[in-house]
Amino acid sequence: MTRQAVVLLSGGLDSATTLAVALSEGYSAHTLSFDYGQRHRIELKRAAAVSRSLGAAGHKIVSVGLRSIGGSALTSETAVPKADAQAPVGEGIPVTYVPARNTVFLSLVLAYAETLGTGDIFIGVNALDYSGYPDCRPEYIEAFKKMANLATKEAVEGRAPVKIHTPLISMTKKEIIETGMRLGVDYSITLSCYDPSPDGAPCGLCDSCRLRAKGFREAGIDDPALGMSDR
Amino acid sequence: MTRQAVVLLSGGLDSATTLAVALSEGYSAHTLSFDYGQRHRIELKRAAAVSRSLGAAGHKIVSVGLRSIGGSALTSETAVPKADAQAPVGEGIPVTYVPARNTVFLSLVLAYAETLGTGDIFIGVNALDYSGYPDCRPEYIEAFKKMANLATKEAVEGRAPVKIHTPLISMTKKEIIETGMRLGVDYSITLSCYDPSPDGAPCGLCDSCRLRAKGFREAGIDDPALGMSDR
Repeated sequence: MTRQAVVLLSGGLDSATTLAVALSEGYSAHTLSFDYGQRHRIELKRAAAVSRSLGAAGHKIVSVGLRSIGGSALTSETAVPKADAQAPVGEGIPVTYVPARNTVFLSLVLAYAETLGTGDIFIGVNALDYSGYPDCRPEYIEAFKKMANLATKEAVEGRAPVKIHTPLISMTKKEIIETGMRLGVDYSITLSCYDPSPDGAPCGLCDSCRLRAKGFREAGIDDPALGMSDR
Repeated sequence: MTRQAVVLLSGGLDSATTLAVALSEGYSAHTLSFDYGQRHRIELKRAAAVSRSLGAAGHKIVSVGLRSIGGSALTSETAVPKADAQAPVGEGIPVTYVPARNTVFLSLVLAYAETLGTGDIFIGVNALDYSGYPDCRPEYIEAFKKMANLATKEAVEGRAPVKIHTPLISMTKKEIIETGMRLGVDYSITLSCYDPSPDGAPCGLCDSCRLRAKGFREAGIDDPALGMSDR
């Protein structure tokens, strides 16, 4: 029987690569995306396109009212910080941090995985070329796993122990891109920007765009998404 | 300055008592309820009434798409098990278990608490007179707390360490009711039933009704909600 897994998919570069890794390891991978009141719903279209393109077993979108909770530039009208495209990403936890976002997302992935009878969960967190969010660090992921193994009926009764797969966690952005290219990820349909135009063109100036540009530059590849939009 | 806390509030007996405890300890208590596609939205009306009645600092309802995830009698059309009102609650984890529900709820409470600048969270879990859900046990709560302290910006930066308060965890239902009576909880407006009528009358036969009835019986008090409805 094919092993089932659930992959948290935003439609960005990291989660698309994570899906490709899960599939390359032989998992039947179900993707889950969140409609959480993010500034740009175009993410969800891209997540669906990435799922289809790579051959996920299915794609589900779950709504969660993070906008009604607030506290982040990504779920409010607060401006997303921009900097010169070549500037390094700043120190500290930025205003694009969404309170407890990965905990909320992983909890819902955990619930969905349980209904599929699996505990295998993939998330594209990365603790090297990243924005400094606390819920991307290995010690956080390990603590989530321990909690999850005490939380669900399937784990507690021994049928589906929870394992959080983080294939990208110690890769540089360059290595992530090289891995994805090798596994056939079409990066032209991925969207990493925190503040894209309504038609899906990246701003080029937010932390996420700058980390992505640095990765492609170091990999010696042109970003195929540049100049792309949904027009 | 008054200490802030967030209290997870379903509108049932346990969470109403938990709110009363938080207020009695001097917290300014903000209540959070979830619109998760539960069978009976009347829960949310009762939660609002309990918040007002006890003097919570505010009541927020956050939506989360657990129904689209499925896997439970409480979020689907699967029948809720009923038994004779005097029968003991069965062994094992029942079909009313909602996959990872407390993990999902606590994650959203954690997010909301962070926006208020606090890590104090109250949840009315009980591991004695309960339905056997794994995510009500002390070891689960402890693991959630450890994870949460690695997850949020406010905790990691030392401003709001997370503490999960579980004042009911080792009480019997009788003791919970006695505590609430002492603290002025109006149990006539609380609703514990998994399968109430549309106007809010409890079925009297589900696990939750039977645990509640046992508590009032042992406390030697008539349940003031019996015969009550929203008509």
